[in-house]
Amino acid sequence: MYPNILKKIIEDFQKLPGIGEKTAERLALHLVTKIDNDEIIQFSNHLANLKEEIKYCNKCHMITDHDVCEICSNPNRDHHIIMVVADAKDVFVMEKMKTYHGLYHVLGGLVDFSRGITDKDLNIDTLEERLKNAKEMIIATSGTVEGEMTAKYLKSLFDDNRLSVTRLAYGLPVGADLKYADELTLSKAVENRLKY
Amino acid sequence: MYPNILKKIIEDFQKLPGIGEKTAERLALHLVTKIDNDEIIQFSNHLANLKEEIKYCNKCHMITDHDVCEICSNPNRDHHIIMVVADAKDVFVMEKMKTYHGLYHVLGGLVDFSRGITDKDLNIDTLEERLKNAKEMIIATSGTVEGEMTAKYLKSLFDDNRLSVTRLAYGLPVGADLKYADELTLSKAVENRLKY
Repeated sequence: MYPNILKKIIEDFQKLPGIGEKTAERLALHLVTKIDNDEIIQFSNHLANLKEEIKYCNKCHMITDHDVCEICSNPNRDHHIIMVVADAKDVFVMEKMKTYHGLYHVLGGLVDFSRGITDKDLNIDTLEERLKNAKEMIIATSGTVEGEMTAKYLKSLFDDNRLSVTRLAYGLPVGADLKYADELTLSKAVENRLKY
Repeated sequence: MYPNILKKIIEDFQKLPGIGEKTAERLALHLVTKIDNDEIIQFSNHLANLKEEIKYCNKCHMITDHDVCEICSNPNRDHHIIMVVADAKDVFVMEKMKTYHGLYHVLGGLVDFSRGITDKDLNIDTLEERLKNAKEMIIATSGTVEGEMTAKYLKSLFDDNRLSVTRLAYGLPVGADLKYADELTLSKAVENRLKY
């Protein structure tokens, strides 16, 4: 019984992560009853311009306002370390730490044969070029099947005597109780135990 | 460090209920990295057309695709009972019950002197007109200060011998344990106790 245009907006919201039917209904109804049309039109314009205005860094493929992103163009960062991540959002997560001072390389996805995503769909040729001047490649893909597959593939491509290839550590989350760790995480924590 | 257009979209999302900064960031990043531009442009167009395409029922002010909404134009509903609600979304909530067969009247808000909303900002003149042919007015405003104030105001305006004015019952939620009820709800449940 929702008006047609409202149904469409409910469907649009449902395409976003973590938004189910109920939440989508609530958001769409809020728009129509509580938000001024000027603000809705602004929102509409921002969406229309999103992909047009977003640039991708010529070097690391990170989303940016410039031709080369703020990180790649920062002379105070260590240009010999390149952390390879799946998505732009991983870079934002890492940058919140404020302790990593190397560069990044955004693959634009992970190898996933079940969905037909192979190395040719990822930014790997440009990575090869950048690694020529690097000392270390930190593989920071997630601990999923696809993350592991991509990590192994990158290692097989670029592991030579010149370049140090490292991977993010697996283990217990800091501050978490043993009993909340899943078995895989726990076995990784034992396997990768450090001298105390 | 977010690109400019992404910052704007994050702000747009934050205007929606239940969406804080973190969620807004996640939604905006998902749009830019995971959703095709065609779908984003569609979303943008739907928003641009929202307020233009939405109509308000000539009789009850409910949002609709037509001049008179599906409920007001349904001859199988009881046109002598009018349930008065604050917003369009209250009608959707009530309709999910599937047990109410009267009509509605959408006030378009509640009396709220602290925000300068008086009876003149609400759809009350058209309600007066409709009540001439009604037998019962069910006041279904919420149990907040504004909801109570509006309910009292409506009662004072329209309570006469001809029209039966009723109000939704307050009491314990069905299936809930006594210990989870707040004191006000509990005292209302005692006050409005029914013969068993």
